[in-house]
Amino acid sequence: MSVINWFRHADPDGARLASVFRATFDQLYDGQRTGRYRWDQLYKTEKTHFGTLIEINLQREFGFEDGLLMDYKIAGEEVDCKYSATAQWMLPPESINHLILGSVANDAKSTWSLGIVRATPENRNAGMNRDQKGSLNALGKSRIRWLFKDSPLRPNILLQLPVNIVEGILSQRSGQARVNALFRNATNMRITRNIVATVAQQEDYMKRVRNNGGARSALREEGYLILSGDYAAQRRVAGDLGCVVPDVGEFVCVRVGPVDLAKEGSVDINGQLWRALAPSDIATSAAPVIDGQ
Amino acid sequence: MSVINWFRHADPDGARLASVFRATFDQLYDGQRTGRYRWDQLYKTEKTHFGTLIEINLQREFGFEDGLLMDYKIAGEEVDCKYSATAQWMLPPESINHLILGSVANDAKSTWSLGIVRATPENRNAGMNRDQKGSLNALGKSRIRWLFKDSPLRPNILLQLPVNIVEGILSQRSGQARVNALFRNATNMRITRNIVATVAQQEDYMKRVRNNGGARSALREEGYLILSGDYAAQRRVAGDLGCVVPDVGEFVCVRVGPVDLAKEGSVDINGQLWRALAPSDIATSAAPVIDGQ
Repeated sequence: MSVINWFRHADPDGARLASVFRATFDQLYDGQRTGRYRWDQLYKTEKTHFGTLIEINLQREFGFEDGLLMDYKIAGEEVDCKYSATAQWMLPPESINHLILGSVANDAKSTWSLGIVRATPENRNAGMNRDQKGSLNALGKSRIRWLFKDSPLRPNILLQLPVNIVEGILSQRSGQARVNALFRNATNMRITRNIVATVAQQEDYMKRVRNNGGARSALREEGYLILSGDYAAQRRVAGDLGCVVPDVGEFVCVRVGPVDLAKEGSVDINGQLWRALAPSDIATSAAPVIDGQ
Repeated sequence: MSVINWFRHADPDGARLASVFRATFDQLYDGQRTGRYRWDQLYKTEKTHFGTLIEINLQREFGFEDGLLMDYKIAGEEVDCKYSATAQWMLPPESINHLILGSVANDAKSTWSLGIVRATPENRNAGMNRDQKGSLNALGKSRIRWLFKDSPLRPNILLQLPVNIVEGILSQRSGQARVNALFRNATNMRITRNIVATVAQQEDYMKRVRNNGGARSALREEGYLILSGDYAAQRRVAGDLGCVVPDVGEFVCVRVGPVDLAKEGSVDINGQLWRALAPSDIATSAAPVIDGQ
């Protein structure tokens, strides 16, 4: 079996790989403890070693056998793992003629890529640096077999919201006020648990979302309904309202209002029909409480 | 202020440094998820990058400013961070004439060291490898200023117990049975929370220690008293019994029996006197429950 087939079998849709890239960014940001969510907030040592953590985390996720010469052995082949933000992987001389598992990830664009290429002398530039590492040349680049190219990364919405909104959220004094501001400002977006932790910056950050004293109860009067992707019923409500559907481990917040007649985009919650409000609509009623929330 | 003075001020007794070394081993073992506790159980990529993680974790703990040329700037000086299990730090040519913050750690021996030395041409061997990294020569080694030398690391008792005992503990089927076996076999030793997590291998591993259905209730009838270092009263009981005193985040398990007359090593718990049992003593009574446990 080829290395490419090995991955097609182990991770057909790339969900496991995507989770490794997301988790590695989040591990470096260390948001729950530090509140950081952007690359430029990292220490030099952290930035320098993103590729190292990807290397470790890929082996942990897939349990690759150790290579004798390279990082891993996959499907019987020695494979070296390389990361570069711009796909300019630096290939050490000892990797020549071995396979390179090259990755790229961009948290601002929410994309990641993974490709395989053989580091033949023909495919690479001669190493010019002291360490004689060489990058792929034009031929080598043309020969990258992309397993996944610009695949979607679970989004980091603190990089997607306007900077002044993010600053407004983070400038609130208490963790609860920051989480309330997050849900009020990030409607119809997938909000991961890690984002809640980064904004709350406390141990039991999930408390800050709950009905009983969390954002759900604080924002209910203003018509905000916070749906959790951990429950099929809540994912269905999101879909029926025509808004973004949260994945497992995510929330989506939507402003809703009551309607009298069933139509496209209306949802029955405990015997009352609801629809998503447009930004210009005024909330006339508190959001419903969904069973189990 | 010199770099040495900076450390003497920031971490007079080395407690912060010691916690970084302990946490880095534990982070790599990833025991709660994987059950691993030994270096040889790690993946190649994990072993290769222990020094990288130390570098990141030291900067996170102490908040060193980024260096312009080297890893950090400490007390106005460029400082490069190096780790080696044998103090054979490999110094890249760009570090010449800069300070090296060199570390050593040994989980089996429960020790760590940290020293400072300047990578002058006089102090180092010429780099012979492709990457021209050179180690310290005899003169350079003699000039290391050790801030801490073979300081105690919070012990990893799974490396200190006999191998067959550890295998016996880990071969139990359930997390609760493994935790019970741990406390029964590791009396009078400091058992960290991380060790409990590694043995339990489950999310809410602290439940496996509690009175209410955990090891405390399971082992009470056999005379085992599990003391937590998080409480001053329990630390005092450990000290009065003449056994090892648990630190914060640690447990110490001791087998006790009732005594009639107060003497050296006896402790009053809720109106009854207790003493630590010798291995040859037979437990004649269930261990007491300490208030708040």
